[in-house]
Amino acid sequence: MPSLAPHPDRLLPADPAVRALARSLYKSVAEAPIYSPHGHVDAELLLRNDYFGGPSELLITPDHYVVRLLHASGIPLDDLGVTRKGKASAADGRAVFRAFCAHWHVFFGTPVHYWFESEFAELFGITEQPSAQTADSIYDQISDALLTERFRPRSLLERFNLRLLATTDDPSDDLTAHAALADDPSFAGRVIPTFRADAYMTPDHSSWLPKLEELAEASNTDTGTYAGLLSALRNRRAFFKQHGCTSTDTGVPDAWALPLEDVEAERLHAAGMAGTITPDQAVAYRRNMLYQFARMSQEDGLVMQLHPGVIRNHHKPTLDQYGPDTGHDLPDTTAFTLPLQRVLNDFGTNPSFRLVLFTVDETAFSREIAPLAGFYPSVYVGAPWWFIDTPAAIHRFRGAATDSAGFYKTSGFIDDTRAFCSIPARHDMSRRLDAGYLAGLVATHQLSEEDAHRIVQDLVEKIPVDTFRLKV
Amino acid sequence: MPSLAPHPDRLLPADPAVRALARSLYKSVAEAPIYSPHGHVDAELLLRNDYFGGPSELLITPDHYVVRLLHASGIPLDDLGVTRKGKASAADGRAVFRAFCAHWHVFFGTPVHYWFESEFAELFGITEQPSAQTADSIYDQISDALLTERFRPRSLLERFNLRLLATTDDPSDDLTAHAALADDPSFAGRVIPTFRADAYMTPDHSSWLPKLEELAEASNTDTGTYAGLLSALRNRRAFFKQHGCTSTDTGVPDAWALPLEDVEAERLHAAGMAGTITPDQAVAYRRNMLYQFARMSQEDGLVMQLHPGVIRNHHKPTLDQYGPDTGHDLPDTTAFTLPLQRVLNDFGTNPSFRLVLFTVDETAFSREIAPLAGFYPSVYVGAPWWFIDTPAAIHRFRGAATDSAGFYKTSGFIDDTRAFCSIPARHDMSRRLDAGYLAGLVATHQLSEEDAHRIVQDLVEKIPVDTFRLKV
Amino acid sequence: MPSLAPHPDRLLPADPAVRALARSLYKSVAEAPIYSPHGHVDAELLLRNDYFGGPSELLITPDHYVVRLLHASGIPLDDLGVTRKGKASAADGRAVFRAFCAHWHVFFGTPVHYWFESEFAELFGITEQPSAQTADSIYDQISDALLTERFRPRSLLERFNLRLLATTDDPSDDLTAHAALADDPSFAGRVIPTFRADAYMTPDHSSWLPKLEELAEASNTDTGTYAGLLSALRNRRAFFKQHGCTSTDTGVPDAWALPLEDVEAERLHAAGMAGTITPDQAVAYRRNMLYQFARMSQEDGLVMQLHPGVIRNHHKPTLDQYGPDTGHDLPDTTAFTLPLQRVLNDFGTNPSFRLVLFTVDETAFSREIAPLAGFYPSVYVGAPWWFIDTPAAIHRFRGAATDSAGFYKTSGFIDDTRAFCSIPARHDMSRRLDAGYLAGLVATHQLSEEDAHRIVQDLVEKIPVDTFRLKV
Repeated sequence: MPSLAPHPDRLLPADPAVRALARSLYKSVAEAPIYSPHGHVDAELLLRNDYFGGPSELLITPDHYVVRLLHASGIPLDDLGVTRKGKASAADGRAVFRAFCAHWHVFFGTPVHYWFESEFAELFGITEQPSAQTADSIYDQISDALLTERFRPRSLLERFNLRLLATTDDPSDDLTAHAALADDPSFAGRVIPTFRADAYMTPDHSSWLPKLEELAEASNTDTGTYAGLLSALRNRRAFFKQHGCTSTDTGVPDAWALPLEDVEAERLHAAGMAGTITPDQAVAYRRNMLYQFARMSQEDGLVMQLHPGVIRNHHKPTLDQYGPDTGHDLPDTTAFTLPLQRVLNDFGTNPSFRLVLFTVDETAFSREIAPLAGFYPSVYVGAPWWFIDTPAAIHRFRGAATDSAGFYKTSGFIDDTRAFCSIPARHDMSRRLDAGYLAGLVATHQLSEEDAHRIVQDLVEKIPVDTFRLKV
Repeated sequence: MPSLAPHPDRLLPADPAVRALARSLYKSVAEAPIYSPHGHVDAELLLRNDYFGGPSELLITPDHYVVRLLHASGIPLDDLGVTRKGKASAADGRAVFRAFCAHWHVFFGTPVHYWFESEFAELFGITEQPSAQTADSIYDQISDALLTERFRPRSLLERFNLRLLATTDDPSDDLTAHAALADDPSFAGRVIPTFRADAYMTPDHSSWLPKLEELAEASNTDTGTYAGLLSALRNRRAFFKQHGCTSTDTGVPDAWALPLEDVEAERLHAAGMAGTITPDQAVAYRRNMLYQFARMSQEDGLVMQLHPGVIRNHHKPTLDQYGPDTGHDLPDTTAFTLPLQRVLNDFGTNPSFRLVLFTVDETAFSREIAPLAGFYPSVYVGAPWWFIDTPAAIHRFRGAATDSAGFYKTSGFIDDTRAFCSIPARHDMSRRLDAGYLAGLVATHQLSEEDAHRIVQDLVEKIPVDTFRLKV
Repeated sequence: MPSLAPHPDRLLPADPAVRALARSLYKSVAEAPIYSPHGHVDAELLLRNDYFGGPSELLITPDHYVVRLLHASGIPLDDLGVTRKGKASAADGRAVFRAFCAHWHVFFGTPVHYWFESEFAELFGITEQPSAQTADSIYDQISDALLTERFRPRSLLERFNLRLLATTDDPSDDLTAHAALADDPSFAGRVIPTFRADAYMTPDHSSWLPKLEELAEASNTDTGTYAGLLSALRNRRAFFKQHGCTSTDTGVPDAWALPLEDVEAERLHAAGMAGTITPDQAVAYRRNMLYQFARMSQEDGLVMQLHPGVIRNHHKPTLDQYGPDTGHDLPDTTAFTLPLQRVLNDFGTNPSFRLVLFTVDETAFSREIAPLAGFYPSVYVGAPWWFIDTPAAIHRFRGAATDSAGFYKTSGFIDDTRAFCSIPARHDMSRRLDAGYLAGLVATHQLSEEDAHRIVQDLVEKIPVDTFRLKV
């Protein structure tokens, strides 16, 4: 059987002299604590600290990176354990895991291959490559591990040296899980919420009205008016801050943020309530809300994270049968400089405002995001995420963003994952790549080794802590 | 005289250790048979098996890669043998060849330099670099070779180890050349047609009506109606399939594919017949036809190749004097994800549908094409062609597409050429670059050497055979 | 104190064998004279030959590359010596210099770091890295140097081996400084003007009318009509040519060049005079002027440089308080192929017309600019400037443009700077990067060492001299 043995120098540059430099840089941060200021792990997971389910339930079915490429290779979602709306999947975990292992080659060259290799070897002690032949033995080995104490969520958190974990939460969430964790003297971790209010921006979506009601209840504020909604959101932001929240997150089709007159916004809000809002009005409403979110960030100092440019649910039949987050969200061309001009004119040089810009269109790094971050004190270049959170793309990002913005206006790595067990592999990848990039600068005498050491260390602690205002 | 001696390790990475890996990978496929599933060689060439004309007539004048850069360097098309409409070029072959050799330096750094170096040295045994001084002797040497038996088309096909050659053909073509080749027991090659129906999508072009008439005759179907046209096209697709065709090709200004109601399509068809169609209507007609082509591909399983984004005939004076394909087709910004959403919603997960997407705007690889191919089982990432079929761009392509789509959702190399003698050099370039890319992954421990060997071999046989459904 | 000692091999590739090749290529041009065909140094500087002011006044405050990143790091423009409109900055030079040195790390990885390192070490003999601790001693060392004869502008010009320096000048400029320098037998340099008529394209700007008046006076022509304006511009172009001018420069929001009927242009001109022109009309006027500039370039043979795609003065509050050129001009998505189609159809193959295209959107290199330069004899690929004048981006440029256009349709390096003392460091950077790029081609056997030597030399003399028609 081909063995699975991730090389200690993986991802470091091939040239022996550059690799030696990179290894030294990497070594200095390899064991550093992990700050994860943006992700999608549920706080409940750590509160309950339940044993994880089976290998596929943990590693395959919920991970859209994995599911999408298997689907692209001809495996129906049903066979990957993805549940049809209202119906459990017929696929059993072992069959799903077999499908994954038999198609291991489709992941060659992708970051999924890299993450799994690290995770299988370093977390679960797997020593064979996945294949049709090894699927069952790997499955059994992981199943057995997941029944042990050391694989419960809190044990893993400790083993991962995960110093801070930010979750993503609805404004209506009561944050009881976060509060309970904070109050639990036996829990040493720091788990903080992130305020994500996307659902309140879209008056043409069927979920908008129910969300308004939830929020009204949570905030004890009437959200039937626009003014009420803003007030409720401010109320909840304050509540989130009390629970340790330092940032918000917003995902939008485009980055346009254009304020409306209050009276016009009220009119659109009312149309949304009445179900008579037109698509154009809904867009205007959403763009105004984005502007208002920026204003609130300036007021309360919560770091504003913005992720525009994703086309959600591209394949309607899959959405209808399996729901969202099933692998067919896709990147779109994305602009920042003009869409955000109004926000940046109004708040861009205010010290309390901070805006971290993420993109799935990597052309924006050199053309828009880094130049913006190179002038506006408020703007930071968000690390490559989704679709471009890969070795080749992360290397391109450094080469494209550092030019205008340097290292100190980039955000530090974010893992953006709901796959809890992949967090160390993802951060480790980033540390290796940054070490390699810096080693390249040193080897070409663009940077001293001493300065490179300073930067590689700042990238894993000072920079994320500063960017996301994590200092306690 | 500076010598011409292509290095056996050319295009392999410079680092000695990585090169050793790359060399081993390359060696394993260097002599493998060539599959050429997309190109523009004429089947008649192989049927007639005539001796080729002179060197310029074979290598310079018909190759728009060569002609355009010489033109850009100040040489009028007349001096390159390009004929003015209705008039033979005054330039004699030797003078054209001299112009080419005297401007050899303008090709430094371009793939033309690479292809010619390989072709001159390996095919014709040239040992001197082209220059004003060597032009005549090289011309003579090639002229002499072209008079010999081993340089007739069928001999070359065999020497090239060209296992499959797909041509590009009009739906009205009777495919007699293909049939005759298939029936010729002395011909061991496999030459298959590709169905290219672009001419039937453009009711505002002067050629549309004559093409409809040709098609009507070929299909014995009235093409005076939209329904008749669709029926005639289906008829010819079936005929092409009988002659070994496995795929279609379509070139369009943009990738939008939007179905019309039949009654509306009939109305536009009638307006096209009457010469009263407006530009906007012609666009709607074309986009509907693209949708219909996708539907037909789903029905009959012919692989749909799509090449959007080329602005044809940018320089009208050149078009007027010399006709099309004279070097001034130019790339444009190109989108795929939204333009193809309707097609992919309707056919994208149907196992009989297959869509290979090509681009001349390389930003689309990481942002659109690879992400689409990473979800839709039907979508494959087409190899870089035209303008980006170069060492640097092919390397970028691998780094941009593999992230989301892996190796197994890319199409395998296509040469897309009408320059018959350049086919081996083009495929050889691709094999070297893939070997180098894979060696880089191995050297940075992202892939095992064993897996890299599997991939490099699959890329030259299994992957093109699967993508283009070439298995017999 | 960490030492400042730029490595003699800096920016050359890390691989030892490739570096040896690169070093040999670089050596052959390291001391070659500098041609600077596009920049923003004032001819008066050399005419007056005054001692420079203090270090900050020379190196920090006027350099928007430096100011913008310090501003982005939280330092107000006031503290960087940038003057508010009508008011002197309160910041003293030493304090500004301290702020710069204390934030040296924000430039790590940027070209500013590289330029300053070269300039500090090679020009001023600084041996310590900038830091809060070393700020004062570096400041004193530079201050002292600037009081010496060898640091006066003409001495530096000679030391820089600056064979040609093109300035940028308003059409109304009387060019007395240029004339005086040309007439000065003690001055060996060649300083030529560049004709920049942007101000005459924008009838909706408040400066348009005053500029028309200036131009009327300078040309002794009534500019109150469109015909008069064209005539005045032609008059001044001829005057500039008499003073050695070989090229024009034009910066526009977009590259669209669309001629208007004369009567319509007159109508818009009149509306501009009357202050009644609409924004859409102003755009039409500007696009017509761009077309007219191209026509004039065809007539008089002045090389037309075009820099589209910059959004000027993104942050209005900064513009209002500090004026333009204060770090918030930003790149935008930029197209060339369709916007310039009319110009290229009318003038593109005329031997007297020449068009050098610059971009701040680097995706345009492979998709638009290089393909245009690969067909049109008139079109040249402008070197990367502003935002992409960095090691990583220049390397990407070569990989993206050489494919279609080769080396001989690129413009040669331009420094585009008003920072006189940075000129050698900028050209040196380019020479090192080109040497490295060529060494990579040689090391991968894409080019012979002999040919690489020819190219690296042509890139610093023949190519800029040819592109900008600098031969006397």
